[in-house]
Amino acid sequence: MPEAFAKVLSERFGARFSTAAAVRAHHGKDESPFDPIPPDAVVYAHNTEEVAEIVKLCAAHKFPIIAYGAGSSLEGHLLAVQGGITIDLSEMNKVVSINAEDLTATVQAGVTRKALNEALKPTGLMFPIDPGADASLGGMAATRASGTNAVRYGTMRENVVGLTVVTADGKIIRTASRAKKSSAGYDLTRLFVGSEGTLGIITEVTVKLYPVTEAMSAAVVNFPSLKAAVDTVIQTIQLGVPVARSEYICDRAILAINAYSKLNLKPAHTLFFEFHGSEASVAEQAGIVQDIAREHGGQDFEWATRPEDRNRLWTARHNAYFASLNVRAGSRAISTDTCVPISRLADSIIGARKILDQADFPTMIIGHVGDGNFHCVLVIDPDDEKENAFAEQLNNQIVELALSMDGTCTGEHGIGLHKMGFLVDEAGEDAIELMRRIKRAFDPDNILNPGKIFAL
Amino acid sequence: MPEAFAKVLSERFGARFSTAAAVRAHHGKDESPFDPIPPDAVVYAHNTEEVAEIVKLCAAHKFPIIAYGAGSSLEGHLLAVQGGITIDLSEMNKVVSINAEDLTATVQAGVTRKALNEALKPTGLMFPIDPGADASLGGMAATRASGTNAVRYGTMRENVVGLTVVTADGKIIRTASRAKKSSAGYDLTRLFVGSEGTLGIITEVTVKLYPVTEAMSAAVVNFPSLKAAVDTVIQTIQLGVPVARSEYICDRAILAINAYSKLNLKPAHTLFFEFHGSEASVAEQAGIVQDIAREHGGQDFEWATRPEDRNRLWTARHNAYFASLNVRAGSRAISTDTCVPISRLADSIIGARKILDQADFPTMIIGHVGDGNFHCVLVIDPDDEKENAFAEQLNNQIVELALSMDGTCTGEHGIGLHKMGFLVDEAGEDAIELMRRIKRAFDPDNILNPGKIFAL
Repeated sequence: MPEAFAKVLSERFGARFSTAAAVRAHHGKDESPFDPIPPDAVVYAHNTEEVAEIVKLCAAHKFPIIAYGAGSSLEGHLLAVQGGITIDLSEMNKVVSINAEDLTATVQAGVTRKALNEALKPTGLMFPIDPGADASLGGMAATRASGTNAVRYGTMRENVVGLTVVTADGKIIRTASRAKKSSAGYDLTRLFVGSEGTLGIITEVTVKLYPVTEAMSAAVVNFPSLKAAVDTVIQTIQLGVPVARSEYICDRAILAINAYSKLNLKPAHTLFFEFHGSEASVAEQAGIVQDIAREHGGQDFEWATRPEDRNRLWTARHNAYFASLNVRAGSRAISTDTCVPISRLADSIIGARKILDQADFPTMIIGHVGDGNFHCVLVIDPDDEKENAFAEQLNNQIVELALSMDGTCTGEHGIGLHKMGFLVDEAGEDAIELMRRIKRAFDPDNILNPGKIFAL
Repeated sequence: MPEAFAKVLSERFGARFSTAAAVRAHHGKDESPFDPIPPDAVVYAHNTEEVAEIVKLCAAHKFPIIAYGAGSSLEGHLLAVQGGITIDLSEMNKVVSINAEDLTATVQAGVTRKALNEALKPTGLMFPIDPGADASLGGMAATRASGTNAVRYGTMRENVVGLTVVTADGKIIRTASRAKKSSAGYDLTRLFVGSEGTLGIITEVTVKLYPVTEAMSAAVVNFPSLKAAVDTVIQTIQLGVPVARSEYICDRAILAINAYSKLNLKPAHTLFFEFHGSEASVAEQAGIVQDIAREHGGQDFEWATRPEDRNRLWTARHNAYFASLNVRAGSRAISTDTCVPISRLADSIIGARKILDQADFPTMIIGHVGDGNFHCVLVIDPDDEKENAFAEQLNNQIVELALSMDGTCTGEHGIGLHKMGFLVDEAGEDAIELMRRIKRAFDPDNILNPGKIFAL
């Protein structure tokens, strides 16, 4: 980067501006299978105004800017493919306000989902969206993230009320009021949600909250086959049972989870369920799902009603990605993220399993099957080029299968670097051209996370 | 319009193209208080390809295009303020597909909400979004409409899965797959939802469906004061009771509804509730709400469990707008549409009532109070300029009050012509500048419903 520019930032931000190799290296990687690409420098911002100041300086130098929250992207969003400055927002970790009466909270972008739920404890409210990692709310908004609770509570698309955003020219805008619904102009909130740092820097997020459910119950149940497990979920959803969570974990993933999280689950095709509601409603939901599961040969229903047992179960589920890496020393993982209409879920997931079975490296399937979304995890040796290429071939086949079923290449991880080709297949050139026009209109010099989502 | 252009359209579309005064007059008005402004011509399209053909012709002549569905806009969306051609989509009334297993349906844009529900009858599914009018699905998407069920089921924002859209250059795009969730690129679906015909012509809509609820129960209850009624709703929402409908109707609106719909409701501050779910859940919800209502002096709980009684009640509610016009011969109505965070609802609605009480023409308040959204209806003599000006003054005051509470000027009707000034107050110039950039990028010649939402 130009020395004079570095000097300005250094004088303004002191120790919060760094070009040290270790700091840059840390910010040039994420949880994706890609090799790191460090930025030229890193600056830690503490509030929206500072972000605007940095963006204005970068805009003047037409210098790329990458927003960094918790570093938990799975798709290469954080790699500085065109160089530039990473704005680290992790110290923007204040809960700005909790409006318990309105069931909303406003947080700085660096607040993580766990930190928010910790802050909510005295209020009896919760924020349910839970990607595997303890991601930042800014990052979750930017990738339109979701997780295990989405089947009942929706994704960031449904749960962001409004955003504070710094635009490419350093202006600060608020995308919406705190009203629950609005028809006031174009939906800027949902345009920035999922824009992966390419249209603006999200600095504050207002989200919906929910009363902590009166009653809660979780269950683990095994099935004789993948199809039996998936059909159970499909029927549950089609009947309109408002399950809070319905996760499929394949027999191989169960072994990995047992090893990593010191559990003793039976290595079979397994569903984790959770039910939220009043005592009566939870009992009713659980009864219906038990009946459906039994019809499909589900057995060994294990109930976890104590909070500590439930937590152990869901922590193990959230750590499934790390459990998969743990089965092979020095490995990296490619995680698919397809999502299909629920009527095609059985075909899609059984097809994916067949595709995975061609591999001689470890593979497993875990997923938010109530939404039609699941992840195939391909655990590869990053130094074995042949293996890498074969894994990408299988990845391609799995995505193609989902697209042929009117599904999407990414349910919750985003496009980043990894799925740019798939987006073209999915959306088509004419739709991407509209996305390009928005990008050019918002960021004519292409300084905001350049090189991601689509080629300009 | 240029004669040669009219000739081309006339030769291509025959009797479906018209410049007859009566046809133009019919298409130049809606349910807003504005005087009609007819387009230069009207053409009836039968499918997406025809719409694309018409748009291409208009683009070549830089001629404005207005999409017309059921004509039920309340904000002047359909007025041809810059002339042009109205594309009438009402004959695009085919239900393209019902995917019962996926709980989705795809319809042509001219299908109305009632027609869709009629087509769904054999499936045991329903589409809950219900603006007062029997609006078209295309128009509902374009204005981000909602209605009485939004408190439980959300608005068009939450219920549109994907759209087929004709762009300003006549390309046909699909905004999304049918997957329940996706992180694949910018959210084009939600950008077109609420864009009021200014970014593209919506020709097909894929929406979410819901199983017809197992049990259903509706109740009418009277309160000693506006505050008592509103506080009952606020507490219900804050407790997380999943009511399907919770409508406030003021004492004066009850009189109008009684007269129009031949009912005998007690002229008091009234709530209409509806509960959906299993038998047990409906009983539980009804019990909780009854307890809350009684604490606030709610009395004369009248239950409507028979479908015909419920239908009579909700038909009367849906016709409230026409009932208000009925209290004064030859009148028109200005309907406000503010929505505030629920914690501010009592202040907002009591404040609005005080503002209305300055008028000596009929006024009333009805609304979707569970969402914080309500409508003040000002029934004016369209020929009395002084009264018109005073009504607009009151309208201004009501909106200002809502904006001061972090609310929105429109919960569900859209901006159209009527609220362009309010949008500037609400969103701010910098946010509107982003909207303008999108508009210019999508429609550089400003041919799509020009002159609406914001000044370019």
